[in-house]
Amino acid sequence: MKFFEVIKERAETIGSWVCVGLDVNPEKIPAHIRFEENPILKFSQGIIEATREVALCYKINSAFFEAQGIWGIQALEKIFVEMPEDVPVILDAKRADIANTSEQYARSAFEVFGADAITVNPYLGKDSLDPFLEYEFRGVFILCATSNPGARDIQHLILDDGRPLYERVAQEAGQWNLNQNIGLVVGATQPEALQEIRQIAPDLPFLVPGVGAQGGALEAVVRWGVSSDGVPPIINSSRGIIYASEGENFAEAAREAALALRDRIREAQGL
Amino acid sequence: MKFFEVIKERAETIGSWVCVGLDVNPEKIPAHIRFEENPILKFSQGIIEATREVALCYKINSAFFEAQGIWGIQALEKIFVEMPEDVPVILDAKRADIANTSEQYARSAFEVFGADAITVNPYLGKDSLDPFLEYEFRGVFILCATSNPGARDIQHLILDDGRPLYERVAQEAGQWNLNQNIGLVVGATQPEALQEIRQIAPDLPFLVPGVGAQGGALEAVVRWGVSSDGVPPIINSSRGIIYASEGENFAEAAREAALALRDRIREAQGL
Repeated sequence: MKFFEVIKERAETIGSWVCVGLDVNPEKIPAHIRFEENPILKFSQGIIEATREVALCYKINSAFFEAQGIWGIQALEKIFVEMPEDVPVILDAKRADIANTSEQYARSAFEVFGADAITVNPYLGKDSLDPFLEYEFRGVFILCATSNPGARDIQHLILDDGRPLYERVAQEAGQWNLNQNIGLVVGATQPEALQEIRQIAPDLPFLVPGVGAQGGALEAVVRWGVSSDGVPPIINSSRGIIYASEGENFAEAAREAALALRDRIREAQGL
Repeated sequence: MKFFEVIKERAETIGSWVCVGLDVNPEKIPAHIRFEENPILKFSQGIIEATREVALCYKINSAFFEAQGIWGIQALEKIFVEMPEDVPVILDAKRADIANTSEQYARSAFEVFGADAITVNPYLGKDSLDPFLEYEFRGVFILCATSNPGARDIQHLILDDGRPLYERVAQEAGQWNLNQNIGLVVGATQPEALQEIRQIAPDLPFLVPGVGAQGGALEAVVRWGVSSDGVPPIINSSRGIIYASEGENFAEAAREAALALRDRIREAQGL
């Protein structure tokens, strides 16, 4: 089954659009597991065990693991190996390079780690994304309108047709979607962009960061987030879930935070 | 000393603008070292030993090492540890994410591996690059006009002022350069862009890929490549140097290919 079919089916089965973001910062790990052999692994295992039934999918932020050197990569490998088979995993790596190099990044994400999807950056153009897109059963989320304040610097520049760059990226992505495995990253902090992008690319699923620590609102996400094929927005929260408690109850607190976000989303849907 | 001062001084000392690109593909490693414990490490060690006197710097392509999993990361760590102290190393990783994540990528590149410089992608805007730029003694090369055919898809889009996006990126980069540690990636395959970008950002050093396997010409690189502070273009060749021979003489052949490129550059300079 293709990635977005899996997402759609799982969303229906478990009734949740919550993506749990694993941005595991060793400095924020509860004291009682800081002296484990591999603390970020131990912490991640606790979070996954506690949230797996409410998680539509996980988004693993590669940077936090890379910053731990070999230990981090070992943790990453182990997390992928142990991941429950029915839960898809997005490797949030924001990669892209010239084609012969993107081939290696795709190999790393999809074959070394076995990620079900990846995030990529469009600045180098289509040929830099093709090596990812060729894996037709994996998802490829192209950065479109991101959730950070600096998104305005480049993404919001106005092109000669009077529209911002991110709209053109959305339009191009729709053209590149021959394997129906492209999604777009659209921040919840940009509600107007959500609407515009949905109109330009009706069939592209959204990965939506920024609802938690970054303060984005859910109403626009729910209203414009569902694709024309019925794939729901994948609504990510990282810090708001995994650091819900700094105590020994961190995993249970994460579960409660994920359930609370699931319910806020359902409420915004009017359910 | 700041990164670009080191580059300028070393270029004067050794008389070479050649950056040796380590895009180490295990499938292209000579047969006689394929069964070493860590073939990509052994191969890289051979290349570095043979080329260190002609290399202005090395550019390590992170993707090729990541694609080997733990072995690749171990090779990467070892290469950085063993690197001769007088030779700067650029980690070609093309990273960037929201600020709290870019902090982790910067930490990985500059602290875990000890890279002297990194390549980054501007699509997420200035706040996504600040965590790299704060390391004032390290170099940060922002993708501007890349060497691949797909560069036209996004980078060449015309903005409402009638100029292509890559020119605006060059202009913004000039504004962001408070620590004088920003350089630009400008492909040798785009000679007109080289000239335009030099006029827009006179003081920004260039990292120039694409002279080898990608077929770019040297004349424009030499003519427009030097910054107003006298920092020469860092002219990268990867495949043209490291795969010059598939035989047991691969290291010596790499040295000869690097020397030949150094001489072609000097010839283009009229030296």
